[in-house]
Amino acid sequence: MAPANRRCHPLTSEGPGARLNGPMDLFLTLDAGGTSTRAIVHTADGVALGYGVAGGGNPTASGAEAVARELRTATASALGMAHVSPGQVTQALAAMAGSAVSIAGVEEGLETLGVRAPLQLGSDLEAIFASGTASLDGVALVSGTGAAAVVVQGGTTTARSDGRGWLLGDAGSGYWIARRVIRAVTADLDRRGPRTALTDALLPAAGVVGDRNTDKDVLLDQLVALLYAIPAPGTARFAPLAFDLAGTDHVAARIVDDAGDKLATTVLALHSADRSVPLVAGGSVLFRQEALRTRVAGLLRGSGWSGSMHPVSDGTVGAICMNLRSSGVIVDAAMHPRIVQSLHEIRAPRP
Amino acid sequence: MAPANRRCHPLTSEGPGARLNGPMDLFLTLDAGGTSTRAIVHTADGVALGYGVAGGGNPTASGAEAVARELRTATASALGMAHVSPGQVTQALAAMAGSAVSIAGVEEGLETLGVRAPLQLGSDLEAIFASGTASLDGVALVSGTGAAAVVVQGGTTTARSDGRGWLLGDAGSGYWIARRVIRAVTADLDRRGPRTALTDALLPAAGVVGDRNTDKDVLLDQLVALLYAIPAPGTARFAPLAFDLAGTDHVAARIVDDAGDKLATTVLALHSADRSVPLVAGGSVLFRQEALRTRVAGLLRGSGWSGSMHPVSDGTVGAICMNLRSSGVIVDAAMHPRIVQSLHEIRAPRP
Repeated sequence: MAPANRRCHPLTSEGPGARLNGPMDLFLTLDAGGTSTRAIVHTADGVALGYGVAGGGNPTASGAEAVARELRTATASALGMAHVSPGQVTQALAAMAGSAVSIAGVEEGLETLGVRAPLQLGSDLEAIFASGTASLDGVALVSGTGAAAVVVQGGTTTARSDGRGWLLGDAGSGYWIARRVIRAVTADLDRRGPRTALTDALLPAAGVVGDRNTDKDVLLDQLVALLYAIPAPGTARFAPLAFDLAGTDHVAARIVDDAGDKLATTVLALHSADRSVPLVAGGSVLFRQEALRTRVAGLLRGSGWSGSMHPVSDGTVGAICMNLRSSGVIVDAAMHPRIVQSLHEIRAPRP
Repeated sequence: MAPANRRCHPLTSEGPGARLNGPMDLFLTLDAGGTSTRAIVHTADGVALGYGVAGGGNPTASGAEAVARELRTATASALGMAHVSPGQVTQALAAMAGSAVSIAGVEEGLETLGVRAPLQLGSDLEAIFASGTASLDGVALVSGTGAAAVVVQGGTTTARSDGRGWLLGDAGSGYWIARRVIRAVTADLDRRGPRTALTDALLPAAGVVGDRNTDKDVLLDQLVALLYAIPAPGTARFAPLAFDLAGTDHVAARIVDDAGDKLATTVLALHSADRSVPLVAGGSVLFRQEALRTRVAGLLRGSGWSGSMHPVSDGTVGAICMNLRSSGVIVDAAMHPRIVQSLHEIRAPRP
């Protein structure tokens, strides 16, 4: 979730498509997340013609080559579904975390498909923001594997809080929650910490054979072997256990509450943010866990935050908006929901 | 600090050296720690004749081959200083963390030096315990890079608390403290957390160019690049910053206090421990930081612990005791301080 070198065209007062060469010019929008990568072929009106999805594409976690490969796969699917010539794509934008280092590799991959439009790089956090609102000013708060918040002004990031990865930060993220779960279970088995239902949930989820009546050293030796084999942010997969049990288990409830506190603190540290602007809440953890969003919203309201909260599943709508805006299309409050609807329809399973 | 497969000979009532073949039989004792490895050639009376030191030898962190190499280097130095024939060594024991997997490689290394005695493996935690007391019953608490506590009964570990590494446990360890320092500094720079003097200490210690008046994203980008390049437990090197500043900085003081609380909890979770037995406190963090030991001792006394606390720098004395005991030598309260004294003298710098 590092800031990206985005080529940002100024918005103009011309109408939709005014700066395009012709009515058949098409857009390719890519959205690379940690767990999946999406490609959309769409018109200047934001009508989705083709959609493709492939594997994870976070350049810091899986390497630039893997990102380029997944983006190419998703693009091939989207072009195939749209039944259009790759040469018709005149505008391409990829929203992703990390720096622009990998853009050449992605461009090469697209060229092998016949896409010759220059590729712009956009920030994944700005894309999540633009997915939730047509406003160009507001705040995005993300909690997925990692966690961060940004202030967006005029469509561009002007301040940032957290998002420094599993060691330095990402407070309230999936990794942060999962690490708390893992340590609570270890302390429970050692009787250094309170008894928690997280133990009976984590042991089978991690692949440990035996229940808590088994000798604790046997269980812990297995847990050590299994968990250290997962690269650091990957243990975030166990975060949902805390949400599953938060209604009935004190330890799980405390972890979820603390995650909410951390995320609210991350937003409130953005001192330059106007507290009446919209707040877009994204990332897999924040999108899926309504209880977490409710806690964050309550804490923000208690601190004088009056802006509305808009949950989004990913940054794909926002990446489309960024792609359109960079060629002069005005994406306003009337057009934004049409993009959401068009993407929703093309993503829906077909008979 | 995993339990080791120690071949444990029963103690006999025979006097010192009673089961040895002759008065010239010598002992080789090895003590492999995470940051350095020690070898001692000594007599059945515990008189040190030769001493050697080499690099770190934790098999889980640096690999079995590296451990074997360092142990061989330390042994060659010790044999050289002792001016004895390697063939005179009839008893060899190595105290180290981890399993017995690596023992064959260590034995091969010793054989190339002419040492043909079979090598026994001892637990590093039992060695630390036996370094601090001649008693065969008590508790060892260790905080170095990692942290753990064990109950020792009749010279053998009967229960264990924590010590599961940086992800699952090691509460109150050097890594645990350093992680708190790193996260406090990141939160300070983000203004998500309180201002702390740890920031001005960590930035230069980690190699970041610029002070806190520099743009925070510039500082944090450097910190991210530098700290993620250090393998996970290696960041423990920054733990001393918390102790340096605990007297004047609230954030540092809180980290040190919390570490003490965690270590006391780790001891108190050993429900099978008699609370009047001696507690040996070892590991680089617990040995060097008297304030931490004082806090742990206070918390334990407040929980009804009446046993004495014995700080030790490493497990070398204890490894010598274990080696002697495994051949029937009785190391009692009269002999133990003589071993400490002899090792102290041979370690002292010579003119």
